[in-house]
Amino acid sequence: MSMKLYNAQLSPFSARVRLAIYAKGLDVEIVDGFSSPELEAELEKLNPMHKVPTLLIDGKALPESEVICEYLEDLGLGTPLRPKDPAEAARVRLLSRIGDLYIMEPMTKLFGQINPKGRDQALVDRELAELAKGIGWLGHYIDGSPYAVGGKLSLADCTLAPMLFFYEQIGPMFAVADVFTNVPTLKSYFAGLKNDPHVARVLSEVDAALRKVMGR
Amino acid sequence: MSMKLYNAQLSPFSARVRLAIYAKGLDVEIVDGFSSPELEAELEKLNPMHKVPTLLIDGKALPESEVICEYLEDLGLGTPLRPKDPAEAARVRLLSRIGDLYIMEPMTKLFGQINPKGRDQALVDRELAELAKGIGWLGHYIDGSPYAVGGKLSLADCTLAPMLFFYEQIGPMFAVADVFTNVPTLKSYFAGLKNDPHVARVLSEVDAALRKVMGR
Repeated sequence: MSMKLYNAQLSPFSARVRLAIYAKGLDVEIVDGFSSPELEAELEKLNPMHKVPTLLIDGKALPESEVICEYLEDLGLGTPLRPKDPAEAARVRLLSRIGDLYIMEPMTKLFGQINPKGRDQALVDRELAELAKGIGWLGHYIDGSPYAVGGKLSLADCTLAPMLFFYEQIGPMFAVADVFTNVPTLKSYFAGLKNDPHVARVLSEVDAALRKVMGR
Repeated sequence: MSMKLYNAQLSPFSARVRLAIYAKGLDVEIVDGFSSPELEAELEKLNPMHKVPTLLIDGKALPESEVICEYLEDLGLGTPLRPKDPAEAARVRLLSRIGDLYIMEPMTKLFGQINPKGRDQALVDRELAELAKGIGWLGHYIDGSPYAVGGKLSLADCTLAPMLFFYEQIGPMFAVADVFTNVPTLKSYFAGLKNDPHVARVLSEVDAALRKVMGR
């Protein structure tokens, strides 16, 4: 089975899939989908949405990070990251979904407002409030231990680790003193999760990519 | 196993779960989650997100339509709606996801602009373009037969039927002549899908709920 991932180091959705690939111990060729006109053209041909991550697997292209991760689980490749117990699997999916719908949506809008010049403060305030709501919901379903579900790395952690990395950046960018003030369980979860070697690897990759675009 | 669904007849996400429940032939008590202060208080207590659909199953509450549907599949209850083949299951999830992220997001914003008085035309134009993009992506993955994947009803159809019902309303509301012009396969898919008795039942419920709120 030959696999190639069209990826972007900085994308939290690509990072989710990379983390799953590392943790599962899979042999996947990982390329930056936007690093050359040739690769971009390749990606566009494979995926009408022209988005990363896209997994090319035995000649067939699959987009959408969550769909890719579930597919790798269904194929039974490498270390399982989706619990067999239906109730635990539901918690994994719920956490990923809260991340996708209620964390990433407002956060993406906030990242469009990083530059203080020309910042739309009303939009920033509104999206910070939305984000706080999503983070609160996440906090409700997280108990503070280092893994979100079942005491070991799961797809929920793959989704949340890159998102929480970016969430931490919100503080310095938008003058929020402590983004985890109202969610101590989430703070303790994320601090513990960072000790996982696969998580540490992916977050250091995302951090390096962020420093590069920020010119730091 | 006792199950209760907190529902809203008009919500496409609730309709997705109802359709799955009907097609699986499950015995679930279905209540309108916002029909009384008592039920609202009950729902708020069960779900910090205070959203429908929420499934109460053996005393535990699970929100988010997609998560609920996957959970019912994992429990192995009733007629399966998720293909066993990993590639087919991936197509089902991809279609649901395109619906959730790229159809419902712009469509929800458009529904906030139904009233021509005070309509923000720039927003309407932008979201109509976003919606056309999402619909185009959906069209790319749909071949025109009456079921989206595998020749029988699946969770992809449960997601898409209510969304396409609402998508059809976009035409008369925003002066779009034929919303399916550029996506003939999607048009033929939806026309065929409406013949499924469970789909027909759910769409007639949504239609009745829409007529009620529109005062028709």
